[in-house]
Formats: sequence, C-alpha cells, structure tokens
Amino acid sequence: MKKQETPIKDLLQKITQVLHKYERMEKLPLVVDAGEGTPLTVSTKEVHTIEVIGDHQEINITDVAGHFGITKSGASQMIAKLEKRGLVERRQSAHSNKEYWLYLTRKGWAAYHAHERMHGEDREVLFEHLSEVPISDLKKTAQILGMFEQTLDARLNQADMKKT
Amino acid sequence: MKKQETPIKDLLQKITQVLHKYERMEKLPLVVDAGEGTPLTVSTKEVHTIEVIGDHQEINITDVAGHFGITKSGASQMIAKLEKRGLVERRQSAHSNKEYWLYLTRKGWAAYHAHERMHGEDREVLFEHLSEVPISDLKKTAQILGMFEQTLDARLNQADMKKT
Repeated sequence: MKKQETPIKDLLQKITQVLHKYERMEKLPLVVDAGEGTPLTVSTKEVHTIEVIGDHQEINITDVAGHFGITKSGASQMIAKLEKRGLVERRQSAHSNKEYWLYLTRKGWAAYHAHERMHGEDREVLFEHLSEVPISDLKKTAQILGMFEQTLDARLNQADMKKT
Repeated sequence: MKKQETPIKDLLQKITQVLHKYERMEKLPLVVDAGEGTPLTVSTKEVHTIEVIGDHQEINITDVAGHFGITKSGASQMIAKLEKRGLVERRQSAHSNKEYWLYLTRKGWAAYHAHERMHGEDREVLFEHLSEVPISDLKKTAQILGMFEQTLDARLNQADMKKT
C-alpha cells in the first residue's frame, strides 16, 4: 500500500459521510409562520434556495443551478415549486424582455427570516470555527474538493452524453 | 467584512456544489450482466453499498450506516432492497446467534466487478491526483470537513430529539 493511500481513503470516506448527512439535513422541515393563520412547512433544501435568491440581486434560474451545482432542469423544478407555493416570483428585466430575475415574495421573506432566526446561530458557530483556520488551508480544502468535483463532472457528463 | 469571510463562503459553496453533484451521481444507473439473460440495473448508490460489503469482512448494518453517515433505518432499507434483489445476503455469525454479517451473492459480486470495470479507472485518476497532494493537506481537509460535519450532526440530533 502506498504511503498516501490511507489518508486518501480516509478523506474520501469523510467526504461521503458529510455528503450523506447534508442530504439528510436538506430534507428536514422548517415551519414558518408567515402571519397567514396556518403556518407554512418548507424543506431545508427549499429554504436554502430561498436564501440564495434573497441574498442576490438579479439572479436567474441558471445562476441558481450554478450556485448549487445542480442541473438547470433541477433548478427549474425547484423554482416552479416555490413559485406555486407563493414564495418566489419572477419579474422581467427592465433591460430585456427575454431576461427575468427571481425575487422573494413577502411569504418568501418570512421563510428567509425564520431560517435565519432558527439556524443563523449554527452557521455563526461554524464560521467562528472556520475563522481559526488559516486562509491557505481553507483554499487548499476547496482545491482538493475541486479535484473530487472534476471526477464527478466527468461521470455526470458521460451520463448526459449517453442520454442525448 | 472580516478577512476570512470570502474564503469561508467560497469553501462552503464548493462543499454544497460537490454534495449536489455527488447526489446526482449516486442516482446514475449501472447496467450489470450477471450472466442470467436479462441484465440487472442498479443505482450507483446501491453499487457503493455493494462495494463496501464486498470490501469488508464481518460487516453488519450498523457498520454500513456508520461508513456512509446514514441512519441505521436508512441502511436497513437499503440492505433489505439489495437482499430482495438477490445481491446481498445475511448469515449468522459463528460466535453468536444474535450477530449476523452481510455478504455478497454471486449476483452481488457481478455488480461489484461491473462497477470496478466501468469506474475503477475514474477512481484511479482521482487517486493519482490526490497522491500529489501532501499528506498533511489531505488530513487538514478531512479536519475542516469534520467541522462542517459537527454542525450537521448538531442539526440532525436536534431533529431526532424533536421526533422522540
């Protein structure tokens, strides 16, 4: 066995563990009181999409897909669901009638703030821990994850090519 | 904005992108010819479970759950599905009639080897790239992912406590 083999295997296992826990976390429901009587239940995955739309000016479906590393059709489906539930709306750009941007509705902002109130603290704790890590290590970690991402991209592209 | 804020945000975004791509990859089908006429279709997620069982002696459902960072009930469901499809079987341990281990069937091994033939090379390329990374960086990356995992664990435990 090569010297590096164990740390590489350990790292790959750690990546898959974090991935599966994240997947589970995204399914957790968040109950939002939008001041309309019956409270609203959104999944963590949905609220993360709401968060990205709330945090960005002039964002469209392609941007949302890129942000999360999901397909454009996956992002479209998610947005359509949020539009149907009255959390997100699209408005045409002032500059072009082909372009449109995504915005949060009042209900969307209620979900945004409920998420912030409930889990903003968890995120702050994580940020505090990560603030103690040297910047160069943070960047290295992102680079190493990028290598893993390349392998995934190759596999996903192969699969897309088979479909067409 | 603190100096570290951008690299932290970049890293968190990279993690979520890799996560979502991995999630997509796990859904990709793998067609296996087990020499029984009709070929068998298994998902990448299923074949990864098959791989872990094939790679370990004396492995049970709790070990599978721990390996992937999934719940025991999630692992049970996955194993039950694989048993039903004749890919995995459980046999009682020689030492205790309460303990049993998981094994691959002949069909399970066919899936194991098909996956190795198809994607062993991708993995080798990734291993080669990661072999060029200093061991200390690999370990640091695993540590940083561990911080992220702690946040996820806290959230998942909270949710479990609410259920009970």
